[in-house]
Amino acid sequence: MSTTQRQATNGVNVTQLAETVTAIQQDPTLATFRFRAATTWLGGGHSRTSIQGFWGAGTEDSSRSKPFNLDGDEPPVLLGSNQAPNAVETVLHALASCLAVGVAYNAAAQGIEIRALDFDLEGELDLHGFLGLSPDVRPGYQTVRVTYTIDSDAPDEQIDELLAQVQRTSPVLDIVSNPVTVTMARGT
Amino acid sequence: MSTTQRQATNGVNVTQLAETVTAIQQDPTLATFRFRAATTWLGGGHSRTSIQGFWGAGTEDSSRSKPFNLDGDEPPVLLGSNQAPNAVETVLHALASCLAVGVAYNAAAQGIEIRALDFDLEGELDLHGFLGLSPDVRPGYQTVRVTYTIDSDAPDEQIDELLAQVQRTSPVLDIVSNPVTVTMARGT
Repeated sequence: MSTTQRQATNGVNVTQLAETVTAIQQDPTLATFRFRAATTWLGGGHSRTSIQGFWGAGTEDSSRSKPFNLDGDEPPVLLGSNQAPNAVETVLHALASCLAVGVAYNAAAQGIEIRALDFDLEGELDLHGFLGLSPDVRPGYQTVRVTYTIDSDAPDEQIDELLAQVQRTSPVLDIVSNPVTVTMARGT
Repeated sequence: MSTTQRQATNGVNVTQLAETVTAIQQDPTLATFRFRAATTWLGGGHSRTSIQGFWGAGTEDSSRSKPFNLDGDEPPVLLGSNQAPNAVETVLHALASCLAVGVAYNAAAQGIEIRALDFDLEGELDLHGFLGLSPDVRPGYQTVRVTYTIDSDAPDEQIDELLAQVQRTSPVLDIVSNPVTVTMARGT
């Protein structure tokens, strides 16, 4: 099947998806992706991140003609000025957005049509950690709860299997659920 | 010191920061925060998250008169339409935004003035994980590298200590570096 015959399920180009899998199976180095972000502190709890280029599929991506800008800030109760969601709220967005891609793409690959897909997320943390008031309290989320609703004609069993596959392969769910090595160094 | 005497270092109300610490020391339950997000899939790799209310400091926050909306999408090479940064790029933003808050607030508490603060981040992943092509390859980042530059008159030793404190207490660095329990359930 050529790339000109586009098959879209859930808005996903299934032909391109299959071609991507084949390309990576033929050349595993194409699977390496390096994503980047540059963030400038703007005062108080406010910062702005610029996201544009990345390395992937064996080349530097040039599909974005201008950067995406994302702001972070804190609400007044956390000494900010509410100019943007805060960092831990943004993690919830990243997690749901990743799960949404996973469900849509995996469903498309299996021919499952999704009419609607929604997520509600809640993460709980204890400020003793961030404020350095107790070394025994972790600063991050103690738990994150995700509730999803999905509108599809697929039987429950197939949806359960789909969601299990998504949970095994979601990049952000993995990043949140499992340890990632983060190195920090002062630049010059 | 009363709340009317505002002292701001790095744009951070140090008086309010000290009062927050005192309030939590007197009533530890005030430290519980529950953040929320609601995400709707919009087709293909595109989704939109709404973030507004949260529970914290013993009450439901009502400081935001309208929700923040954050979009997620994939670039064309990952079958999306580039309407927003993708989920793993957004994680880099969340991490840097959290570190910026940590540096600004901890520096303010210590009387260290920061003139400028910038972060460059890079995260590397192997698409074999997300595509389910190899169960041995994790879907998330294998490593995240953070480089920061900071403009301050404080001696290097004090900056190093400040950054060590931030690394011990950053919520998103903790979430990325250490396991968080995520529960997923289908709603009705």
